[in-house]
Amino acid sequence: MKSSNISEVLNDALEHGRKYISEGNIATYIPELSKVDKNFLGVSIVTTDGKEYHAGDWQQEFTMQSISKTISLIFALEHIGADVIFTKVGMEPSGDPFNSIVKLETKSAMPSNPLINAGAIAVAGLIADRYEFEEFLRFVRLVCGRDTIVVDENVYNSENGAGKLNRSIAYLLQSNGVLEADVEKALSFYFKMCSLNINTFDLANYAAILANGGKDVRSGIQLINKPVLQIVKSLMVTCGLYDGSGEFAIRVGMPAKSGVGGGILALAQNNMGICVFGPALDVHGNSTGGYQILEYLSKELDLHYFS
Amino acid sequence: MKSSNISEVLNDALEHGRKYISEGNIATYIPELSKVDKNFLGVSIVTTDGKEYHAGDWQQEFTMQSISKTISLIFALEHIGADVIFTKVGMEPSGDPFNSIVKLETKSAMPSNPLINAGAIAVAGLIADRYEFEEFLRFVRLVCGRDTIVVDENVYNSENGAGKLNRSIAYLLQSNGVLEADVEKALSFYFKMCSLNINTFDLANYAAILANGGKDVRSGIQLINKPVLQIVKSLMVTCGLYDGSGEFAIRVGMPAKSGVGGGILALAQNNMGICVFGPALDVHGNSTGGYQILEYLSKELDLHYFS
Amino acid sequence: MKSSNISEVLNDALEHGRKYISEGNIATYIPELSKVDKNFLGVSIVTTDGKEYHAGDWQQEFTMQSISKTISLIFALEHIGADVIFTKVGMEPSGDPFNSIVKLETKSAMPSNPLINAGAIAVAGLIADRYEFEEFLRFVRLVCGRDTIVVDENVYNSENGAGKLNRSIAYLLQSNGVLEADVEKALSFYFKMCSLNINTFDLANYAAILANGGKDVRSGIQLINKPVLQIVKSLMVTCGLYDGSGEFAIRVGMPAKSGVGGGILALAQNNMGICVFGPALDVHGNSTGGYQILEYLSKELDLHYFS
Amino acid sequence: MKSSNISEVLNDALEHGRKYISEGNIATYIPELSKVDKNFLGVSIVTTDGKEYHAGDWQQEFTMQSISKTISLIFALEHIGADVIFTKVGMEPSGDPFNSIVKLETKSAMPSNPLINAGAIAVAGLIADRYEFEEFLRFVRLVCGRDTIVVDENVYNSENGAGKLNRSIAYLLQSNGVLEADVEKALSFYFKMCSLNINTFDLANYAAILANGGKDVRSGIQLINKPVLQIVKSLMVTCGLYDGSGEFAIRVGMPAKSGVGGGILALAQNNMGICVFGPALDVHGNSTGGYQILEYLSKELDLHYFS
Repeated sequence: MKSSNISEVLNDALEHGRKYISEGNIATYIPELSKVDKNFLGVSIVTTDGKEYHAGDWQQEFTMQSISKTISLIFALEHIGADVIFTKVGMEPSGDPFNSIVKLETKSAMPSNPLINAGAIAVAGLIADRYEFEEFLRFVRLVCGRDTIVVDENVYNSENGAGKLNRSIAYLLQSNGVLEADVEKALSFYFKMCSLNINTFDLANYAAILANGGKDVRSGIQLINKPVLQIVKSLMVTCGLYDGSGEFAIRVGMPAKSGVGGGILALAQNNMGICVFGPALDVHGNSTGGYQILEYLSKELDLHYFS
Repeated sequence: MKSSNISEVLNDALEHGRKYISEGNIATYIPELSKVDKNFLGVSIVTTDGKEYHAGDWQQEFTMQSISKTISLIFALEHIGADVIFTKVGMEPSGDPFNSIVKLETKSAMPSNPLINAGAIAVAGLIADRYEFEEFLRFVRLVCGRDTIVVDENVYNSENGAGKLNRSIAYLLQSNGVLEADVEKALSFYFKMCSLNINTFDLANYAAILANGGKDVRSGIQLINKPVLQIVKSLMVTCGLYDGSGEFAIRVGMPAKSGVGGGILALAQNNMGICVFGPALDVHGNSTGGYQILEYLSKELDLHYFS
Repeated sequence: MKSSNISEVLNDALEHGRKYISEGNIATYIPELSKVDKNFLGVSIVTTDGKEYHAGDWQQEFTMQSISKTISLIFALEHIGADVIFTKVGMEPSGDPFNSIVKLETKSAMPSNPLINAGAIAVAGLIADRYEFEEFLRFVRLVCGRDTIVVDENVYNSENGAGKLNRSIAYLLQSNGVLEADVEKALSFYFKMCSLNINTFDLANYAAILANGGKDVRSGIQLINKPVLQIVKSLMVTCGLYDGSGEFAIRVGMPAKSGVGGGILALAQNNMGICVFGPALDVHGNSTGGYQILEYLSKELDLHYFS
Repeated sequence: MKSSNISEVLNDALEHGRKYISEGNIATYIPELSKVDKNFLGVSIVTTDGKEYHAGDWQQEFTMQSISKTISLIFALEHIGADVIFTKVGMEPSGDPFNSIVKLETKSAMPSNPLINAGAIAVAGLIADRYEFEEFLRFVRLVCGRDTIVVDENVYNSENGAGKLNRSIAYLLQSNGVLEADVEKALSFYFKMCSLNINTFDLANYAAILANGGKDVRSGIQLINKPVLQIVKSLMVTCGLYDGSGEFAIRVGMPAKSGVGGGILALAQNNMGICVFGPALDVHGNSTGGYQILEYLSKELDLHYFS
């Protein structure tokens, strides 16, 4: 595929996506998030051979939110091990919204998977009991390729103050014997990772590593091990867009992870990493414009894993 | 990959799988199925370049059961259209067992997806209202490459007699306005397609077409359209092994569909179709030995879509 | 209490209730029921010393619907026995709507209690396997004190035709091993008992027997045994108005049973039987005007069991 | 009824109840409760004409646990008002265990009723925002007729430390907008009221007031208003023994409230208050021996409200 073609398609995708902004709404359950301009829309691509493409508000910073769940999962798999992690969380899509608490009482003490809130809090607890947040932050900076990534303290404080439902989930996990860490310690780690400020270029860099078998696309250094990647990318397919994952798999066909900050990270195996940003969200919590950009790119650049 | 290698790996996979037969149990809820010998184990591979490999009881016939849901879905997508189908069923994994009825009351009148019982009955109703079963049977024979495939009347009668829960689901769908067909007509179609007698070679032929972009691997004739395949294979990833789909995606990483007759169909994109048969089932209704064979093949032949 | 007083209060109660007709709606899920005039409102009282009082449309016939569940339960307890009945249904309020199916999968194979649809169908199955409907009908006529009570064939046919959800429940009960009778046989019995045509006087006669320790208020003949009554009246308190039972217990405080035909039967222990009729229903399926009449009577005549 | 008769029946009831101790188990989820001797069994009766009867370990102190929910509800109804209370909790039995969280997500933001944990925490929050615990304690002492009732600090600390699930419920209520008070403030109040040390005589005194229309049985002073009593006693019937309330209503037929400390309070309208104590519990959390004593008394003394 020629570079000129990717650039052109990317600009068209952005214009296509812009038409869907009006269908979405800014997340309001975290006060600080509700202040964002709904009309931002940006996208970055980093290919596995090291080229990069951008369009729109790709330099605009936003908070990672649930996209960070993939990095904490990788960190936990690398440092603590799948054998420990999967005694605390399952591997199955839940069929329920991202913040649902119901299955923890009716089905299993364990969260369905590490990409819903309950599962990510359980993983955060495992990490927080063994590592400082700064160690995790170093890993985030490494895979995103930028040393200046920091927590947005306003968002962090806002999440921490507003996080009643996540506190409820954390205490239920503790009651179920899943969360062994102190609730506030686990939640502090969780809210911090959700509040990391990044842009689409940062996450496209990270996504390119996922697409590239764990190797940095420029240096070729192996940053993430292959068996870990296999787990994380498979979970991104089945659970990455919450209760919209199945439809996304059909329409877009890339491992992906969304966040209520408006970002969606996606990747085409052995080809490229992508990140879109558009804070107007659909009912599942996924960026409306970003979703459309990814679907457009998937079709035009033939990125669907079953195309 | 050399043919000699595939043959060897296939035999090793069979022996590996055999160790897991004792962990499973024959399905007992359909009386006729409970008579099957638990120790059968067979596997067939058909590559997209037309080679075939077999091991174990690959000539032993068994009933297709839920694997037929992928063929009826393809038939419906080709002849009735995705726009109609997806007003009656969703695209999301349910997080619940294959025969669950709960979400039809609590979440949505529509079944979560076409690969759980409720969804497949809805699709069967759409077809049964428009086509004779014989037309569908011709399509099954076509994609499996064998003209002599027929309904096992003993199993059909057994399923029809024992199918209280499926009747309950069908009437609930009718009450919800999802099933417009007559309940008995829809169920008759559904039980017949589940009762089709096939062997692993038949289904490996069909799986090879799925892997080969819809073209017959020998004649090159396009039997299934690409957009239809994209839908069906994506659903096989997220929903193909019921509430074991997420773990299968991680451990095996192939679009697949299991049936309580003991079969599991899987495929490696642009590479090969596979079918295993082993009637001893795990708690989710998936063949224990078959699952292990697929995991072994995935690792040894590097078939995981994210390997 | 003086008779003149009851008459006066009854008329005031009727006028009070009339104000709430506009808040309710006719049941539409059974086509034949939807034809009824929403503005009917009537009430009858029969005291345990044999006096009777009427107001409004007390002579207007309507179908018994769920009120019949109390008579079938009494019939089953008398003829089959509590030991058998309560291996098929529970004794607990369900907290869910009258036609809910969810707990049959998630909580227990047995319906929560005999006064929700699932429980009443289970009881109907037990009776239908042992008795002709005519024997049950004779008992209904006996306790209502009128030999000419018959099934409304139009309503019966309408219910039978529209009864998808009840069929779904019945097949689920059969699948769960709760319903041993043939589904159509059980449902035919169930729909017939729901379609019995009565007026408020008929049911006030029956309610007076419940209030009078099982004895006919005029002849003094024991028609229902005391231990049976204790079960049925207790269930009427905890489950008689579906998921509105708790509030009714607080506000009105009488054992009662409502039906979507618009009737509510209630009783004040050792004092009187009451029946109201008003086909405009609230969201729980209870007559809006009838509910208000009962609350008015409870307050003015001091009928609350904890007054 | 002659006094000699009550004494005799009471002793027989105790011996009858003793046979059921072995069927129950001590509550273990609060560490301090698990230390209690399983074999305690005691009962007290206070009649509305001021007589008192005792048997067994009636002087043994235990913690009130959920029985306190009736007193906090009365306190809230008297001081804050039903109009406020019932915007925060419902009036319906939940059909679920006492500590269930599910309906708060699936059915309503509001707890089903004030006698399950979620509802009682909501009520505790309303009180804690307006009153000191000492004011509530004074009311407890008044209705129990003993000035020396205090919080068992060991149990309080144990509950507070072990109360993960109640914290989860409280944060979910806060997230739902039901709990406006600070979570720790509400829970501190809640755990304190549950940890009040009393004996069966104390609670029989209180139950006698409930039976006596709110008047102290000795002084005749009105301590609780009648409309409040009507609410509380009706709720005790439909929700007093959690998901065992329906069966208790049938078998025993008295407004009652159980606690996992082993107490059950019950009353026969205009007749007597009763309290039993036996820390061996059934699966619903109700004293096995105590339940049997109450059923025995109900039959022998004709206390069932529908006898």
